[in-house]
Amino acid sequence: MKDRNKQVLLAAHPEAWVKESDFKIVDSPMPRPGAGHILVRNDYLSLDPYMRGRMNAWKSYAPGVEIGQVMVGGTVGEVLASNNPKFAIGDKVLGYLGWQQYGVSEGKDLQKLKPGKLPLSAYLGAVGMPGVTAWIGLLQIAKPKPGETVVVSAATGAVGSMVGQLAKLQGCRAVGIAGGPKKCAYAVKELGFDACVDYRAGNLVKDLEAATPDGIDVYFENVGGEVLEAVIPRLNNFARIPLCGLISDYNAASPRGIPDLRPFLFKRIHLQGFICSDRMELWPEAIRQLGDWIAAGKIKYRETIVEGLENAPRAFIGLFKGENFGKLIVKLR
Amino acid sequence: MKDRNKQVLLAAHPEAWVKESDFKIVDSPMPRPGAGHILVRNDYLSLDPYMRGRMNAWKSYAPGVEIGQVMVGGTVGEVLASNNPKFAIGDKVLGYLGWQQYGVSEGKDLQKLKPGKLPLSAYLGAVGMPGVTAWIGLLQIAKPKPGETVVVSAATGAVGSMVGQLAKLQGCRAVGIAGGPKKCAYAVKELGFDACVDYRAGNLVKDLEAATPDGIDVYFENVGGEVLEAVIPRLNNFARIPLCGLISDYNAASPRGIPDLRPFLFKRIHLQGFICSDRMELWPEAIRQLGDWIAAGKIKYRETIVEGLENAPRAFIGLFKGENFGKLIVKLR
Repeated sequence: MKDRNKQVLLAAHPEAWVKESDFKIVDSPMPRPGAGHILVRNDYLSLDPYMRGRMNAWKSYAPGVEIGQVMVGGTVGEVLASNNPKFAIGDKVLGYLGWQQYGVSEGKDLQKLKPGKLPLSAYLGAVGMPGVTAWIGLLQIAKPKPGETVVVSAATGAVGSMVGQLAKLQGCRAVGIAGGPKKCAYAVKELGFDACVDYRAGNLVKDLEAATPDGIDVYFENVGGEVLEAVIPRLNNFARIPLCGLISDYNAASPRGIPDLRPFLFKRIHLQGFICSDRMELWPEAIRQLGDWIAAGKIKYRETIVEGLENAPRAFIGLFKGENFGKLIVKLR
Repeated sequence: MKDRNKQVLLAAHPEAWVKESDFKIVDSPMPRPGAGHILVRNDYLSLDPYMRGRMNAWKSYAPGVEIGQVMVGGTVGEVLASNNPKFAIGDKVLGYLGWQQYGVSEGKDLQKLKPGKLPLSAYLGAVGMPGVTAWIGLLQIAKPKPGETVVVSAATGAVGSMVGQLAKLQGCRAVGIAGGPKKCAYAVKELGFDACVDYRAGNLVKDLEAATPDGIDVYFENVGGEVLEAVIPRLNNFARIPLCGLISDYNAASPRGIPDLRPFLFKRIHLQGFICSDRMELWPEAIRQLGDWIAAGKIKYRETIVEGLENAPRAFIGLFKGENFGKLIVKLR
């Protein structure tokens, strides 16, 4: 086992919906750390919607994965060997080593972790990229005031569940949009949302109206499409839309966009596309604050842990069908 | 003449394109100023695209004009009688007294003018609402840095012509989009734009590409529709779009919107709808700075003056067909 490195490669650029044959699982030789390099054993791999964009042949905000390359992804693990004085054997590290059991890094993209009370996997979710994304989008871009109504789509997802809880900590009314009664019950009963609208129940427009009697001041957008269309008429003047994701469009052959831009003018809407890695200077403060809130029991999180790298492609596909519940993570050992 | 007040009333809510029969011209009795009121003779009336929104039956950002009411609009004129200690007979005033020869105000919406070197009509354009709109949208919202590329649609209009000149004063590359070779030549030769694309020439996408070799950092949006669609692929990462108007949609039965929102996410675009009257605290500084630049010859402006209130409806309709050139103003006496 130790002399082989299981990897998931990109086998094909997906046409629309991603499928298992777009991936290829291989056993490669163990990587060897060169001068200044660190060999890391990946214990957990994060699966996130943004990865779908990297699978395309066309360029997104980051370079795509090429055919035959290892799929990109965030990882946490342990240093097995180090030719770099900043890292020692046994260090726990957050990295970006991709869909594989072992990886080699120059160290620049590795962060040493001191997990303390938190489990290692939390650094891929609540106190990792998704948590920081929620923190930046809500607290730095939307800046909701107490009493305002914050709506978030994909409300029980890794980002959405954090957005709703952060909104509550700001004194806001938090309203989720999620698929199915089970997720909606979880948002309200476990996460403390004031309401959660089930978009699969067939009454999205009316249910959203009922859940937002004072309109919507902040819409944290993860989804796009028909959910966005239902939100726009409920937006108040000066509403803010942190645009974090458009998961309904990622696999679509033809996206839905915005049918009418006039409400954005008349209501003076602020729409801001953002990516958490653009604001690296905010990460330490975000991680510290999120960690404190989680340790104090003020923020809860949930993970779906999939066992084994070979099951990563199927789990990733399920992400776009709303199958997972909370942060989707693959346990590699 | 003095005992009659010619007025233009809203006769019908337009279905799509506004037409002359949507207006009604009447001779009403002279208004009489009550206690605390001021009687103003309107010398100039401003015609602006936003008025189209006020003609609709449905609510925009401001209450609409009802059937039989005087059309709203900005005016400059002279105080004829005053029961208000803040205003004296002969004062020149900027107001919002609408499409009529005489109006009565409580004084709150009147600003005393000291025209000095500038003609009175300039306070309806370059140093009035359109100039302040350009100033707020470009300098307060988009905040372009020297060397960035600023594109503005309706580039020779009252707002657009100011945007381009302000962009040049900031050290930016200024690119206009306008209809027809005459307007484009004016933008480049008179206003100092670096380039101007004629959207009527049939090669909007290619011509815009040629005019923006380094992409677009700021797009000041007055138009929407196909012009916006041509701009989006040219936007750079972190581009800003002050959304000031959507003139191509105002008369449309079905607006075009944005076909695909994903570039707004991938490129981290900032879109901000705004209306200059939301930022009244900025007006004094804006008017002072614009007045200084105009007096110093650093900013030029152009007016189309239409003679007589009875010609206002036809001139207003022409505004949506791109007939006017520079700020459209009606001379009332």
